Amino acid sequence: MIVVDWGTSSFRTFRIAADGAILDRRSSANGIMHVPGGRFAETLREQIGDWLDAGESRVLLAGMIGSRQGWKEAPYVACPAGAAELGAALVDVPFDGAQVKLVPGMNGVDASGVAEVMRGEETQIVGALAAMGGDGLACLPGTHSKWVRVENGRIVRFTSHMTGEVFSALREHTILGRMMKDGAPNEAAFIAGVARSAEPGGALHHLFGVRTQTLFGKFTETDGPSYLSGLLIGHELRAELGSVPGETVHLIGAPELVALYKSAIAACGAKAVSLDAEASVRGLAIIGEHAQWR
Amino acid sequence: MIVVDWGTSSFRTFRIAADGAILDRRSSANGIMHVPGGRFAETLREQIGDWLDAGESRVLLAGMIGSRQGWKEAPYVACPAGAAELGAALVDVPFDGAQVKLVPGMNGVDASGVAEVMRGEETQIVGALAAMGGDGLACLPGTHSKWVRVENGRIVRFTSHMTGEVFSALREHTILGRMMKDGAPNEAAFIAGVARSAEPGGALHHLFGVRTQTLFGKFTETDGPSYLSGLLIGHELRAELGSVPGETVHLIGAPELVALYKSAIAACGAKAVSLDAEASVRGLAIIGEHAQWR
Repeated sequence: MIVVDWGTSSFRTFRIAADGAILDRRSSANGIMHVPGGRFAETLREQIGDWLDAGESRVLLAGMIGSRQGWKEAPYVACPAGAAELGAALVDVPFDGAQVKLVPGMNGVDASGVAEVMRGEETQIVGALAAMGGDGLACLPGTHSKWVRVENGRIVRFTSHMTGEVFSALREHTILGRMMKDGAPNEAAFIAGVARSAEPGGALHHLFGVRTQTLFGKFTETDGPSYLSGLLIGHELRAELGSVPGETVHLIGAPELVALYKSAIAACGAKAVSLDAEASVRGLAIIGEHAQWR
Repeated sequence: MIVVDWGTSSFRTFRIAADGAILDRRSSANGIMHVPGGRFAETLREQIGDWLDAGESRVLLAGMIGSRQGWKEAPYVACPAGAAELGAALVDVPFDGAQVKLVPGMNGVDASGVAEVMRGEETQIVGALAAMGGDGLACLPGTHSKWVRVENGRIVRFTSHMTGEVFSALREHTILGRMMKDGAPNEAAFIAGVARSAEPGGALHHLFGVRTQTLFGKFTETDGPSYLSGLLIGHELRAELGSVPGETVHLIGAPELVALYKSAIAACGAKAVSLDAEASVRGLAIIGEHAQWR
């Protein structure tokens, strides 16, 4: 089988054996934002044409490729759900010479009944289930971080935080960013930001403090981004960890970001373990087993 | 005396009588960001030259004109302080044919010892002191909202929130803004945002909910800005009002913004009164009485 993790800004594909072992892999910058004129079929064929010629005939895609901005919109599967429900809700995409299917995203509600959505992360969670023992709390940090509760091998609820995107908007488009310069990450400034998030006054007040502390030389222009990052991640963590004291957080994502969250979670007095980064391939393999292939 | 409220984006000047009565007024778009090449003296003379010719010789300036980006940096006066301390710390600016002085900004620390600064708002507070009876809590909403505690006619502490600037950055530079359209403000959506800020999950999670609720049709693209505004103002209010239950908030600022805050404060179950918008002129008149004029 061929599986594809096709996101907003990246394209990663894997040829996998029946037991899920990775036989070959490729990646490109052809995220859905960088596929001009809806040429998704052509882009896919360029990437995996030789694997199809070599006899592969099943292709499973996960990620934003199944969104309204992607190839075809795959309706969300309602939470709670697991690999079986996702596998039963795959969406076929017409493609000459192979069966191509999209993994749907998942929707749910938060503790207050407000809608939640994810697309791509459900597949990573399915791939991480075995490592989590089928139960527990996972965090997938990123532009829109996800916190996912897993019970008995199924996703039962999840919440999102706009942490990564808010960081970028503040860094690039506010007075805070004008007082910052890019530089090497500073762990001490990052942890100071995490600590600040526990103090009274709220996030909007803490953000103003980034300005004053730069103004009064508490940290340098190059340390500013680390402090701001720690402050925002700290606010995300405290909102999530408050209700689950003592629980281990399973981190899934890019190694640099996972390392940041790991040290921030430790600074909050909680525990975290990192799972390996190939969760999406494993998840696609597992969901593929539940699919109705011709 | 001539007084000038000279901020980042606007310039307002008043000719006042000895008793503080406004004799004449002018305004222009010559905020310090719109004075090319440091031509502050020339800009001032263009605006008030005829008043000087008519016999005025004392000019008092407040606002960002006294910042590093302005005409001359006036060092902050440390909190607690009132009109007397501000009047004793005025900074002279060389100017042919008149005495020109700058009102300094004020600095302090928040409940956690983190630095706080303001420049311009201290003058508005001085002007509002009489209306507040010399004691109480004032809120000056804006790009960087200020909450100011007044005791015995002096400013004893204050905190800032980046509410207005964060709103703009999110509205203009995130996925939230791409799902919004400008339209008439919607009071119901605004109050829904204020209510949302009291729910669990934290601000970064609530922001993601702006996206999902638009996605699922809970409100329209044109209601989005009102909801986002209510959400952010709600977070500011809850951080400030939590520690002062039952206290009346004295609102000082632009009428539209004051009206928004007033309805948000009512939605939080607290009380607010609005003071008139000419607080800065009155404050300048009072501080001018404490000045050492030649």
